[in-house]
Amino acid sequence: MSKNFDAYALATSSVRGLAPYDPGKPIEELEREFRISDAIKLASNENPLGPPPAVSEYLRSAAADLHRYPDGSGFELKTALAERHEVGLDQICLGNGSNDVLDMVARVFVSAGDVGIISQHAFIVYYLSLAYVHANIQITKANEYGHDVGAMIQAVDERTRIIYIANPNNPTGTWSRAEELRRLLDEVPSSVIVVIDEAYAEYVAEPKYPNCIAWLSKYPNLVVTRTFSKIFALAGLRIGYSVSSPEISNLMNRVRQPFNCNTLAMSCALIALRDQNHCEKSVQLNREQLRILSQGFAEMGYETIGSVANFLCIDMKVSAMTAYQKLLERGVILRPIGGYGMPNHLRVSVGTASENSRLLDTFNSLKNQGLIWTFPWPVGWNYLLLESDWSAVRWL
Amino acid sequence: MSKNFDAYALATSSVRGLAPYDPGKPIEELEREFRISDAIKLASNENPLGPPPAVSEYLRSAAADLHRYPDGSGFELKTALAERHEVGLDQICLGNGSNDVLDMVARVFVSAGDVGIISQHAFIVYYLSLAYVHANIQITKANEYGHDVGAMIQAVDERTRIIYIANPNNPTGTWSRAEELRRLLDEVPSSVIVVIDEAYAEYVAEPKYPNCIAWLSKYPNLVVTRTFSKIFALAGLRIGYSVSSPEISNLMNRVRQPFNCNTLAMSCALIALRDQNHCEKSVQLNREQLRILSQGFAEMGYETIGSVANFLCIDMKVSAMTAYQKLLERGVILRPIGGYGMPNHLRVSVGTASENSRLLDTFNSLKNQGLIWTFPWPVGWNYLLLESDWSAVRWL
Repeated sequence: MSKNFDAYALATSSVRGLAPYDPGKPIEELEREFRISDAIKLASNENPLGPPPAVSEYLRSAAADLHRYPDGSGFELKTALAERHEVGLDQICLGNGSNDVLDMVARVFVSAGDVGIISQHAFIVYYLSLAYVHANIQITKANEYGHDVGAMIQAVDERTRIIYIANPNNPTGTWSRAEELRRLLDEVPSSVIVVIDEAYAEYVAEPKYPNCIAWLSKYPNLVVTRTFSKIFALAGLRIGYSVSSPEISNLMNRVRQPFNCNTLAMSCALIALRDQNHCEKSVQLNREQLRILSQGFAEMGYETIGSVANFLCIDMKVSAMTAYQKLLERGVILRPIGGYGMPNHLRVSVGTASENSRLLDTFNSLKNQGLIWTFPWPVGWNYLLLESDWSAVRWL
Repeated sequence: MSKNFDAYALATSSVRGLAPYDPGKPIEELEREFRISDAIKLASNENPLGPPPAVSEYLRSAAADLHRYPDGSGFELKTALAERHEVGLDQICLGNGSNDVLDMVARVFVSAGDVGIISQHAFIVYYLSLAYVHANIQITKANEYGHDVGAMIQAVDERTRIIYIANPNNPTGTWSRAEELRRLLDEVPSSVIVVIDEAYAEYVAEPKYPNCIAWLSKYPNLVVTRTFSKIFALAGLRIGYSVSSPEISNLMNRVRQPFNCNTLAMSCALIALRDQNHCEKSVQLNREQLRILSQGFAEMGYETIGSVANFLCIDMKVSAMTAYQKLLERGVILRPIGGYGMPNHLRVSVGTASENSRLLDTFNSLKNQGLIWTFPWPVGWNYLLLESDWSAVRWL
């Protein structure tokens, strides 16, 4: 039998349209490349304080049970989360990171050809989750880099099955007020699933920032997602969850891989959840350092997008790739976000005081040496880049 | 706006057809229920020796980096696997357990309405992976509980996109000979993706058992999957992989969640891979104990299905639920496999010598007390149960 094999031609049309994900540069690789030894990574919105001390204590004797499958029902962790959020155990679905639950909700409710709505500059996983299920993806224009909730409401029609909203949004750090999201939930038909991703919620201290989990009894079409990768500092272990009506949670559990969450992730999440002190310290550090970073960049003449999360976008006015590269050479990893339609911005994760101060010093010295350009290109030149190609999904 | 919300009606048709997964009984729950304290679990085909000692050593200082995202490219582990299997780095795709890669391959190649072929009594994840992508699932009849490869070849037509084969198969322990699988790969058009799941490969010592990874250069439509959950004893950490042509691997990476594999899983997998001694000890123990279990059940008058893996199916002749329940009450957890169309069988995972001996003793004593029935029901009575309902997916 002849073997004229073309894997690409056999793949589904949505998959053909995606580029393989190109992960950010690991510290080790950078250090090898530039022969340096003390690089810092401020590129992935992680908690620079590291995990709570009790996690380390726990892992010392955690190996004993690793040959056993995890508890597929996640009973202990779900019990603690149900108590924390004052919801039923049956309203929680655990994921291998919140990425996994964002994906599951699309698998449950979106068939090929259905429409999903997301915002320009929104977290890229919404786009990917919709692409995997062959959805038509409608992208509403952003308003000053934030979600334009009014435009999202306008965009809903009878083909719409799902809306993803990040609050706050990654990579912009922008957020939606309680009244905006309430209006959306009131005006959108309940046949549209509204997913509100609150990965960075614990960092936000704005009085008008809503805790949407409290709205679940009123809006049965609402799904709120949270993660242990940010303030709880367990990105390496992969654990996140959704809170929703029991009906939605039941349906999500039907598409959940039976052992999607690993044993250590669930145990460490439970430990982290109980360490309120570590959370408060993390919020405190983030608040101070976010202010220091904004001021530092302002003093050097750079605008930043107002952020309530643990990261900050700096407007370089020109393509950010030169600054990204020059900083890399000096052992500082930031995140370029051209894939988000923001080729002139760099995203900085808030680090420890000394990491942030090293970033500001390095940046300042590059600027003073004329190695970072700051004058804007003529508007016309940037146009093509700003109308970015979402299918070239390369940066998270 | 009225909120007549019916989540079930909004879900896709495939999802409505699935039951939520009902995980096996954890030891802790059993001990609570029956107020016992020394239960043993021989229900999930885990390695009873536990993980290699170096894993425990590593975890003692593993907490430090858990706030960082994992290496999304899995560079180090993939390098070690490429070397072990003598393939390119670009031929490997890592998964959150092999469950995840089995799922990804369906997402890449199967659109709604396409046909996937699996065997009766095959590992249930193939069925689920196909159901998630809204495939039509064609189930070929088993031959003495094993895959009938000839029937699978016969079943292929122009709508067939994928075939899943377990070698050895879970839950039956049966296996396919090299010549059977070669014939399938030769006769099936290369437009059909053939997935061979070798989760238990390391346990098999049969001369005619093929190492299908060596065939990849000849069959570009072949995907072989492996796991660290079985002989490598890391089921709790979730790590598996596929080996295929670089083209298929590239496509699978497009649907892979960027950080699907956690940091500790990848590090511990690397450690386990290097501990050849632990593998050999595990194979040795399994071989001896599998023999002891088969003989033990044979002496009590029970037939077992010939197995080359780390588990064994016992034919109870009548519904296995009574024996399952009686053993539970005595602290011994086995796995009923009614969901696999085998309501009269119990699956036993090979444990340590003392666990297996406790199982045989407990079984024998129940039998002698007349608490386990062994006389067969009239054939007619079992018929409905044997024609099992695959949609009631309840046991892995």
